[in-house]
Amino acid sequence: MLPFAQITIVGLGLIGSSIAHAVRQTMPSVRITGYDSDPAVRERVLELGFCDDVSDSAGTAVTDAGLVILCVPVGVMADVAAEIAADLPADAVISDVGSSKDSVQTALAAALPGARIIPAHPVAGTENSGPDAGFATLFHDRWCILTPPDDAAEGDIERLKAFWEKLGANIEIMDAKHHDLVLAVTSHLPHLIAYTIVGTASDLEDVTRGEVIKYSAGGFRDFTRIAASDPTMWRDVFLSNKEAVLEMLQRFSEDLTALQRAIRWDKGDELFDLFTKTRAIRRRIIEEGQDDAAPDFGRTHD
Amino acid sequence: MLPFAQITIVGLGLIGSSIAHAVRQTMPSVRITGYDSDPAVRERVLELGFCDDVSDSAGTAVTDAGLVILCVPVGVMADVAAEIAADLPADAVISDVGSSKDSVQTALAAALPGARIIPAHPVAGTENSGPDAGFATLFHDRWCILTPPDDAAEGDIERLKAFWEKLGANIEIMDAKHHDLVLAVTSHLPHLIAYTIVGTASDLEDVTRGEVIKYSAGGFRDFTRIAASDPTMWRDVFLSNKEAVLEMLQRFSEDLTALQRAIRWDKGDELFDLFTKTRAIRRRIIEEGQDDAAPDFGRTHD
Repeated sequence: MLPFAQITIVGLGLIGSSIAHAVRQTMPSVRITGYDSDPAVRERVLELGFCDDVSDSAGTAVTDAGLVILCVPVGVMADVAAEIAADLPADAVISDVGSSKDSVQTALAAALPGARIIPAHPVAGTENSGPDAGFATLFHDRWCILTPPDDAAEGDIERLKAFWEKLGANIEIMDAKHHDLVLAVTSHLPHLIAYTIVGTASDLEDVTRGEVIKYSAGGFRDFTRIAASDPTMWRDVFLSNKEAVLEMLQRFSEDLTALQRAIRWDKGDELFDLFTKTRAIRRRIIEEGQDDAAPDFGRTHD
Repeated sequence: MLPFAQITIVGLGLIGSSIAHAVRQTMPSVRITGYDSDPAVRERVLELGFCDDVSDSAGTAVTDAGLVILCVPVGVMADVAAEIAADLPADAVISDVGSSKDSVQTALAAALPGARIIPAHPVAGTENSGPDAGFATLFHDRWCILTPPDDAAEGDIERLKAFWEKLGANIEIMDAKHHDLVLAVTSHLPHLIAYTIVGTASDLEDVTRGEVIKYSAGGFRDFTRIAASDPTMWRDVFLSNKEAVLEMLQRFSEDLTALQRAIRWDKGDELFDLFTKTRAIRRRIIEEGQDDAAPDFGRTHD
């Protein structure tokens, strides 16, 4: 028994196209309809062939769907929901993949009164974007967090859960506000810091940009990966999860100031203690299968 | 013609053991003597067998050396130099692998008057430490920066250059102070930021440490890698390159404050512009062969 016979993916970038590839691989009989607001993307998806149909409007795309997944930047969720409101079947489950959940939940509820809304967030991705970036195994062993509103039907939650499990994900159910706090620290703050340091490094006068790139293997290059993530997506994440992001940023700044002071006043013991503690966290991430144990992320040194 | 017939490596951690492995592979006739202040490390190195001899004191280790490389934390360079001062052959070249260079140069010159000192810094490493962590290809296609003092003999510089080239590295000659400024931004600041954010994330009350680990694939896990680097080494780097590190930290903090303000006041355009600029830096790092093009650092998604 498949959880849904027909799904519609609105937004065919990295995540949307990965869902399509994964559905093709794990539930080949499911019919996939796709839509993207960018005509060039729609054309490319027809060439790549990972959707059964590509519609010319969001409304047309959802008419036969059992599950609709919005894979668009969180800043346009409300607009896209409004576009499909008239055509969304009453029995369709509507979900999304946005990185912040409270604002999305509010936006969808306002635009789609009475709809069977279950927001979701697969915690997976790469720094690449667009319909060519997707691949079927992106969600393997990654967590997908569902944030069903209080009035969501248990059966709908179970079906969406089964759908993501088919794609290889592990499921967690969470309150939307708590999700936003957790992800502010595990995802949003790291991206913000990475964008900042890459910006700082490219604005120096005494050190050239060429030198920054040349000697980036000393640590800097690690940050450039997530600072190469989609600009529109991340602008929207920070603005839509403002409160939690600013709270985490404040804590980070305090800790950074304390470290700065320890360096200025030669407090080597304080530095050593912190650096020892952080090592243990890495160990646990590897033990729990959330990263490779291979040194240097398994980069080749040949 | 090999640049040196006999080398001594003092300090047999990740870098020291990698040099030994690489010399074995690329210059098998070169005799390698090793020393480490930790008896357990010396014993382990005898088991691993990547040195021809392991000495019981730093002085004994250097008596026949053509090249001595100090692979110890920068904070103990002066002490180690003092230990070998009486036994260092007059014609031996003495070098190191420290991540800050001006303080090392000063320390070595003071402890070893008249010695043929050429400090060096191979910009390569992994988050692992100890004699088991080393491998022969660590320096392949990485930069090794030499910071010869003004009175260094041209012939010595050429021999050290040839030695590192044999290990697969590309060579750059740089002034020690400029090195420290460049590395402050490409290596020291990234490590400091990574240590801070991992510390911040492990000190929260509303989000558990288990949640931080569980959802770390959203970006956080990238930072935990370099925050798992050797605590002693990094404590010494920050204290020995204090001025440049504090200068870069100040710039970073200003940029972070600007970004914080942009988020607070919904300045989406400012965010978008920065995030677009940083993407270009990643592209150049990959073009110049300083990182893999594979998405997500080539992590497996199986």
